[in-house]
Amino acid sequence: MASPDMNLLSLNQITTENWSLKEAAEGCSAQDIPWISVWRHKIEEIGLKESKKIIDANGLKVSSVCRGGMFPAVDKEERLRRIDDNKRAVEEAAELGTDVLVLVCGPSPDKDLIRSREWVREGIEAVLPFAEQHGVKLGIEPLHPMYAADRSVITTLGEANQLQQQVGSSHLGVVVDVFHVWWDPFLYREIEHAGDTILGFHVSDWSVPLPDMFKGRNMMGEGVIDIPRIRGAVEKQGYNGPIEVEIINQAIWDQPGDQTLKQMKEAYHIHV
Amino acid sequence: MASPDMNLLSLNQITTENWSLKEAAEGCSAQDIPWISVWRHKIEEIGLKESKKIIDANGLKVSSVCRGGMFPAVDKEERLRRIDDNKRAVEEAAELGTDVLVLVCGPSPDKDLIRSREWVREGIEAVLPFAEQHGVKLGIEPLHPMYAADRSVITTLGEANQLQQQVGSSHLGVVVDVFHVWWDPFLYREIEHAGDTILGFHVSDWSVPLPDMFKGRNMMGEGVIDIPRIRGAVEKQGYNGPIEVEIINQAIWDQPGDQTLKQMKEAYHIHV
Repeated sequence: MASPDMNLLSLNQITTENWSLKEAAEGCSAQDIPWISVWRHKIEEIGLKESKKIIDANGLKVSSVCRGGMFPAVDKEERLRRIDDNKRAVEEAAELGTDVLVLVCGPSPDKDLIRSREWVREGIEAVLPFAEQHGVKLGIEPLHPMYAADRSVITTLGEANQLQQQVGSSHLGVVVDVFHVWWDPFLYREIEHAGDTILGFHVSDWSVPLPDMFKGRNMMGEGVIDIPRIRGAVEKQGYNGPIEVEIINQAIWDQPGDQTLKQMKEAYHIHV
Repeated sequence: MASPDMNLLSLNQITTENWSLKEAAEGCSAQDIPWISVWRHKIEEIGLKESKKIIDANGLKVSSVCRGGMFPAVDKEERLRRIDDNKRAVEEAAELGTDVLVLVCGPSPDKDLIRSREWVREGIEAVLPFAEQHGVKLGIEPLHPMYAADRSVITTLGEANQLQQQVGSSHLGVVVDVFHVWWDPFLYREIEHAGDTILGFHVSDWSVPLPDMFKGRNMMGEGVIDIPRIRGAVEKQGYNGPIEVEIINQAIWDQPGDQTLKQMKEAYHIHV
């Protein structure tokens, strides 16, 4: 399979967590990485206007804003607060010139997963009209089932697709992250089901043993995931947008960011 | 929901990993735990005949033998060796008077999960006639997806059901372990699909954060799993066999076994 297009490479900012947005943007610019995915806690550090200025000054395009979501809460007021926070995230995405807000849907506050999944759907439905007005699409990212208790009750692409279809909006889609979905026996069928609703494609790798449950992702090529096969399936559905490298790993965070970007470019060329 | 029947309580021997089979059997007998699930590495320590003698002397019934499986291997000779090993496990189950051999199907030796899943099916089909002759049923236990790279490519109940149906034998079924399946959005639908092919029901709990990826299971009641709801769904399908407490946890292993059995009985009564 041919290497992916270098013009689609995007640095998901969590990969260089120790860098500010300015450092990340300048790093990408210096190494000809054309896209960046911006995290909200990095925007907060300097404000939205300054963030936009930095991204523009470095000639970058924004592939997505990470992240909205976190909908389930027992208290109704709290659920409304979270919906409002998602609207702020939509505004940030629009202002930074991306049409994708990635959703990490949130864990369940109690043992009732079924009700929490309903709160996720209600939250998405409440944010959607606002997102449509702003020209921003919401991308449901199913997370690996090992994060079901603390990050997301949406755990498989099948579930994300079902949610997308239930809500049924042109401004709602799914995000395929190989780390979260590679193990799924129904992955390729569900990528077909997702079709043109795929809004993003994220890469990293699963090494054995995993260094850590949360900070456990590795550079592409260092694990067991057949990334080219998954990329091929996603591209077959017409996805030709940016490919984000999203690696949460303490050792990678602790090394110089420039080195990470260099490794990332090489691994992208060879292993994606 | 009413507490489960104490006459169905089974000690899965891995819960008291530091005990020999003799210690575990005597421990169960002393605390009126009627069932035990026996692990093969514990049988090996003393031999099959002695194992049987100990179990009989303590008046215990064997709920299952753990474990067969581990089918995928690139080398064909190696796959045949593993099939032979599964036949030995079938003989052990028959000799110990249980009709359930639990299968942990095995990880993929490479990135081709689809081929590895075929090897699992082929392995099961090769063992089945032998199992039928010995009156032993093979129970496919889907493992949590976080074990897909190192323990089992069979990761969801949906996948286990599909495999059961493809092979289509009265001597093949599935095992539902709450730790592995609790997160699954399609769990209750798949328990219905499993119907009367359910051969075992295992309990423990998922605490947040998980103490360890492998040795990370907790006592029932200490985590987020709605165990009674899952038990209710399994019982609705007619399952009324033993309920195994299977906890892999270093702290629990390191405490006196008698204490573990006491805690387990109480947690079973209150939280299962």
